[in-house]
Amino acid sequence: MISFNVVLFDDYEILDAFGPVEIIGKMPKTYSLGYFSMNGGSVLSSQQLSVNTRPFSDMDTSGILLLPGGMGTRKLVNDMTFIAQIKILSENASYVLSVCTGSALLAKTGLLNGKNATSNKLAFDWVCDNGNDVNWIRKARWVNDDKYYTSSGVSAGIDMTLGFISDIHGEKTAGEICRCTEYIWNKSKTNDPFADE
Amino acid sequence: MISFNVVLFDDYEILDAFGPVEIIGKMPKTYSLGYFSMNGGSVLSSQQLSVNTRPFSDMDTSGILLLPGGMGTRKLVNDMTFIAQIKILSENASYVLSVCTGSALLAKTGLLNGKNATSNKLAFDWVCDNGNDVNWIRKARWVNDDKYYTSSGVSAGIDMTLGFISDIHGEKTAGEICRCTEYIWNKSKTNDPFADE
Repeated sequence: MISFNVVLFDDYEILDAFGPVEIIGKMPKTYSLGYFSMNGGSVLSSQQLSVNTRPFSDMDTSGILLLPGGMGTRKLVNDMTFIAQIKILSENASYVLSVCTGSALLAKTGLLNGKNATSNKLAFDWVCDNGNDVNWIRKARWVNDDKYYTSSGVSAGIDMTLGFISDIHGEKTAGEICRCTEYIWNKSKTNDPFADE
Repeated sequence: MISFNVVLFDDYEILDAFGPVEIIGKMPKTYSLGYFSMNGGSVLSSQQLSVNTRPFSDMDTSGILLLPGGMGTRKLVNDMTFIAQIKILSENASYVLSVCTGSALLAKTGLLNGKNATSNKLAFDWVCDNGNDVNWIRKARWVNDDKYYTSSGVSAGIDMTLGFISDIHGEKTAGEICRCTEYIWNKSKTNDPFADE
């Protein structure tokens, strides 16, 4: 079983986290889902949902890391204790997936320097400011570079996670998950209808 | 403020609940989100997420009710205490939205008798068995009849919720939410690519 570790923090965006979780949850024999925050305990999404998490210290850090975005990232990019921990978790992880402004957290660790990445369109300039040495790609539904997958805003995280599943397990497996979840997948990582708005 | 009341139970499907919540959460001045289970306390999704809920008795029942589906519905359709409470909550609600097999719970109350409704395609026959007097429509992304909105499986709940927003607040508002969430909306309730599989 591969650990799929979802990082949560106050004011995360709910679909950034649980869109990808829905997809990964359809492979329960392959992936084991866990929910973590820096110190554990209950965490509140921007939608006022209270969820219970385990501390980072409980994580099997060799697994896959998911970093959602949301308004909470605005404060966290300046929390050097948090960013230092995200850096260690990301270095240890086999893959790191970020959704929306989650890529600002990842950029702040420096691990995206020299790599291609994307983010939310409405917050794009702010995200870029958090990683001047990242090759930010504005028009992309998601971007994969090395072990890093970064997606555009919110819903794009679902397309990216299906793209990740397709890369690792084949497009047929991704298609079966779409059928189970009745999800109309935007399969092309370069098809980004929100980039030009 | 209108209360948007999300009903949760053990083994609910995570995107059934939090896809619609993502959409509704973009109108924080109009809708107030709350999370409820029959007796309150922590509830576990099929994806092992533990969330904290308030009991049904705390609900402003004049608001909008959201009924997700998931494996937990298989047991709950035979829990007459639960179904009796869902009936009362649904009767009081201004609108009732169900996603996926959530329509089996609603059908079991009898409130969909003589009405049009839809559900998950992979569990369609089982859902129909829980409401023999419902006019089940197989090929539909979502269906609206009177104050009831029922959607197809999982992801269809997002399209339905945008359809609901469009009906109540206009298509422009729904479009703005799509832009914020970078969601590629299937606007047509009759466009159901999964019905014929």
